[in-house]
Amino acid sequence: MTVNLKAPLKKNIINVPGFRFFTFGARIKLKNIKNDIVIVELGKKSKTAAVFTKNKFCAAPVLLAKDNLKSNDPRLFIINSGNANAGTGQKGIEDAKKINIELGRYFSLDPNLILPFSTGVILQNLPVERIKDSFKSNLTKIKYGSNWIDAAKSIMTTDTVPKAVSKKFNLGKYEITCTGIAKGSGMIHPNMATMLGFIFLDAKISKTLLKDLVRYVADRSFNLISVDGDTSTNDSFVISTSNDADNPVITKKDKMYIKLRHNVLEIAKDLAEKIVRDGEGATKFVEIEVKNAKNLSESKIIGKAIANSPLVKTAFFASDPNLGRILSAIGNAQLTDLDVSDIDLYLNNNIVVKNGMLSKRYSEKKAIEAMKSKEFKLSVDLKRGKEVATILTTDLSYEYVKINAEYRT
Amino acid sequence: MTVNLKAPLKKNIINVPGFRFFTFGARIKLKNIKNDIVIVELGKKSKTAAVFTKNKFCAAPVLLAKDNLKSNDPRLFIINSGNANAGTGQKGIEDAKKINIELGRYFSLDPNLILPFSTGVILQNLPVERIKDSFKSNLTKIKYGSNWIDAAKSIMTTDTVPKAVSKKFNLGKYEITCTGIAKGSGMIHPNMATMLGFIFLDAKISKTLLKDLVRYVADRSFNLISVDGDTSTNDSFVISTSNDADNPVITKKDKMYIKLRHNVLEIAKDLAEKIVRDGEGATKFVEIEVKNAKNLSESKIIGKAIANSPLVKTAFFASDPNLGRILSAIGNAQLTDLDVSDIDLYLNNNIVVKNGMLSKRYSEKKAIEAMKSKEFKLSVDLKRGKEVATILTTDLSYEYVKINAEYRT
Repeated sequence: MTVNLKAPLKKNIINVPGFRFFTFGARIKLKNIKNDIVIVELGKKSKTAAVFTKNKFCAAPVLLAKDNLKSNDPRLFIINSGNANAGTGQKGIEDAKKINIELGRYFSLDPNLILPFSTGVILQNLPVERIKDSFKSNLTKIKYGSNWIDAAKSIMTTDTVPKAVSKKFNLGKYEITCTGIAKGSGMIHPNMATMLGFIFLDAKISKTLLKDLVRYVADRSFNLISVDGDTSTNDSFVISTSNDADNPVITKKDKMYIKLRHNVLEIAKDLAEKIVRDGEGATKFVEIEVKNAKNLSESKIIGKAIANSPLVKTAFFASDPNLGRILSAIGNAQLTDLDVSDIDLYLNNNIVVKNGMLSKRYSEKKAIEAMKSKEFKLSVDLKRGKEVATILTTDLSYEYVKINAEYRT
Repeated sequence: MTVNLKAPLKKNIINVPGFRFFTFGARIKLKNIKNDIVIVELGKKSKTAAVFTKNKFCAAPVLLAKDNLKSNDPRLFIINSGNANAGTGQKGIEDAKKINIELGRYFSLDPNLILPFSTGVILQNLPVERIKDSFKSNLTKIKYGSNWIDAAKSIMTTDTVPKAVSKKFNLGKYEITCTGIAKGSGMIHPNMATMLGFIFLDAKISKTLLKDLVRYVADRSFNLISVDGDTSTNDSFVISTSNDADNPVITKKDKMYIKLRHNVLEIAKDLAEKIVRDGEGATKFVEIEVKNAKNLSESKIIGKAIANSPLVKTAFFASDPNLGRILSAIGNAQLTDLDVSDIDLYLNNNIVVKNGMLSKRYSEKKAIEAMKSKEFKLSVDLKRGKEVATILTTDLSYEYVKINAEYRT
């Protein structure tokens, strides 16, 4: 069940100079025969910055990747699906290190220059021996992938569609190439975890600004989506640049940086939106805009309070313009000094609540009509500032309960 | 759908000296023919303390009741079901005041000595004229109620069972009588709101301690339940004492106070538990105990993070011991310095997770067996302090989605 989402076309996904990948199967889940490992090689000039889950129960690969990122820029990523290596304690960290050491041997590389990413079942140990065996069969003669869609496919778990986006744009006279892949459809399938997002580009940029970029972009893309309000143990978002483009190195927050940031953000937002459209049991895609807020933080808090309310989400599912639930969710967000008698609500740009009360222009018939569509937009006007945030979310359907409840039964 | 919950027996619900009530119908919802108004008369020596919803979108009657409580102790409550008088702005407050003025005329009472409580549809104006008409027919010759179960019935909205509890206990040689009624089954049925709880007793106690009592009891009863994580616009919990018992006035936090508090808390916990057992679409009743926490606050935060996770709740529904989801919900609670490698989980006192990893003693078969029961207990041991809190919650079933989605369709 996806909401207006199709797999990307091969011709639209382009290779970024300075990066190569290959993918193979290690039967991480014994039954699986699909490719479940992706290895990404990063050029020698490449730089990487990342943000990781804030879940305190964060997985072993997250801890190791964070640690390895502190020193030198990585030269290799290994991403596996099927097992999250989360809730595995010290053994989980040792397992991830073993894989890095083994992989380092094949590439004559310091294991600390390898970043691991895992997604899949929680509370199970990584099948280290099977992964090592798969290295034997696949790393002596590497078959490089030709299209990143194959990488996107290999990192899928409960996703129904691979997620990849590419873009070329200019910084002055210099052409920049950027490709992103992602996976996730909520923190979802029983014991499954993780949103993973990777963006590769070739623009020359200082490490300090790359770190700024990854945070800025994450906050305005992946951190603005919500399927079920749960942050997984393995969530990771990474931006790597090969520094292979011809532009002069960006070292300041100048026009060139702003333009780069804008374009990378477009890619990230597109990937994030695809995750929501592939959300578990989603039958609706809903944009929740919270505008004229004092600051970005309060617009996010209110947007997520609405997006995460089961009562609001079931009303979305039923195409029921249940405005009381939306107002109540806003009231529950517990913002200091929020004056609810200032609040207006719009459904697809038609006013439905004015100053905290039903608008005189409200038509229930029209509201139901609007919500019957697979996609609609809800706007909250707080009238107390200038900031705006848009949260993307889904409804809560029978299918959601089914997917999440019927796995074992 | 209730989980092991039956209506109270008439013989078990007793009148508290100093309080009288009567109930009648005002057709607040035009279609309704049931009694939807309860009026409670409080004796001249009575004292009242209350806590109200923290939802910023709080209803007109809540604003007025809060205001009236600031000055003198109230002599009358008027509680209506069918309309919450929420999201009605200034007109809502004026409507509530009109009702109080009219009611004051019949009782020769200052309207400020009347506390209004409303529960029902949001965003609709109170039918003031119909309520006034009902006064004409019912207040000239009052027929007092004989059993508080009738009062409990009149305040029901989506509740399937009236909720009332009584208890007699001794403070030294003095007998105290205490009866409580409540309504609520989540913030639930489309546009319906509200948990209301009232406890009446006759113990002599100072106003200062009564205020302390209501907060203490609310925090350990009604504030520890969660059906869908939403706090309604009208939630109110009130304790009134007639001061008619013979005990010497309690003015200190002495043994007598502690004993009184214990007994009142028992009543409140019982009422709160009934609300959960009558929770929307509930097929399971789950106790989530969080123990050995640094403080009460963090045990509540973790308990509610688990209780409010849709992923955890659907797993409860499916009798699926999905421990990864529970650990992830704990990790998401974002407690500072929480060390997840300290955490143990128990299912009905059997260890399932030890130090953040699957316990060696874990048996999936036994865990499924335990969760197949209509009631089970989950314990989280944080091993970092001495505080404990137990959150009562339900699962998230197809029926929940149905109840909340199919109202208008």
